Amino acid sequence: MDYEEVEGAREYVARLDHGRDWRGQIEDFAEDEGIDAAFFYGLGAVQDAELLFYDQDEQVYDSIVFDEPFEVAPAVGNISWLDDERFAHTHMTLSREDGSTVAGHLDAATTFAGELYVREFDTTLEREHDAETDLDLWGL
Amino acid sequence: MDYEEVEGAREYVARLDHGRDWRGQIEDFAEDEGIDAAFFYGLGAVQDAELLFYDQDEQVYDSIVFDEPFEVAPAVGNISWLDDERFAHTHMTLSREDGSTVAGHLDAATTFAGELYVREFDTTLEREHDAETDLDLWGL
Amino acid sequence: MDYEEVEGAREYVARLDHGRDWRGQIEDFAEDEGIDAAFFYGLGAVQDAELLFYDQDEQVYDSIVFDEPFEVAPAVGNISWLDDERFAHTHMTLSREDGSTVAGHLDAATTFAGELYVREFDTTLEREHDAETDLDLWGL
Repeated sequence: MDYEEVEGAREYVARLDHGRDWRGQIEDFAEDEGIDAAFFYGLGAVQDAELLFYDQDEQVYDSIVFDEPFEVAPAVGNISWLDDERFAHTHMTLSREDGSTVAGHLDAATTFAGELYVREFDTTLEREHDAETDLDLWGL
Repeated sequence: MDYEEVEGAREYVARLDHGRDWRGQIEDFAEDEGIDAAFFYGLGAVQDAELLFYDQDEQVYDSIVFDEPFEVAPAVGNISWLDDERFAHTHMTLSREDGSTVAGHLDAATTFAGELYVREFDTTLEREHDAETDLDLWGL
Repeated sequence: MDYEEVEGAREYVARLDHGRDWRGQIEDFAEDEGIDAAFFYGLGAVQDAELLFYDQDEQVYDSIVFDEPFEVAPAVGNISWLDDERFAHTHMTLSREDGSTVAGHLDAATTFAGELYVREFDTTLEREHDAETDLDLWGL
């Protein structure tokens, strides 16, 4: 396991905007505040969701679109640099009225309501291509 | 996205009481310690659970009761003020012996065992009625 | 609820090793760095997983093995002492290509890729046998 000791920097609590993309507004916030490394935790509800699943053999992302409302229980992710942009790597567990769930890597979801805690670190996390997995992973 | 920069204040690790309500004992703790804003993260097991799902069209909460044991994997939530009381907004993913899951907004659950990390912030988070969603959201 | 106020100590961001056990490498890291109390949060993907479910009546762990790839969405856990070794108590929600999920207490999983935030506390958390649940819980 490669790791880096970091110092906590700024911390935020946030209320996500109704009707806007969950991931996009976290990335806009990171850009506005100049956040180069952070973890975040959220809960709330979305009106739809597009999840990605990484096919570990084919090494491509498959997409699944759900056009239905969900509770977000929870969202966990981080902010780092990917291809010269701030990227919010977000995983979510989503649930329906009967309690049944879907989960995965979030591409996009229209926010119904959302609450977030963001903890910034005093470093810059940057993604680089990893040959073994064909993913963009942190160069620690 | 509306947000507020906060400073971390007190931090706690906790062991939830067997046989007591998961959410209720977090709210009692918040009351005892005078916590006005926090996020928390937990894992453990419950003996039953009542989950709520917010119907985004009808704007009412529907309730589902599960009278069976579950692993808590995980619980994520926050503490803030709602109608003059400290409220622990808690979302949970729960799993059965065969790995199958249910998830949602937690109303109540009898704790079997539970471990918690609580991070307080030096602010007061207060919920206000939001006309668009008919939910009580933070006024940031 | 029994609890202890703690102070945050060292913090880390980490990239888990491809092909190694998820829990084992967190425990090796805790041993290398001398971490006696921490919470951690992760996301990523695994190539397989063995989950445990605690039978609350029989008070034994039942094991379920899944020999298939999953997204990790998310992992939440903590580090403390159990029987003279550092133990990473880890709960995980896992998802498949169609979004369907399994979750529970993680025994072992071969990491495909993983990202972690670890927050250490300036205390020592130690597990002791609890007669009521027959689990090893923190003596706070």
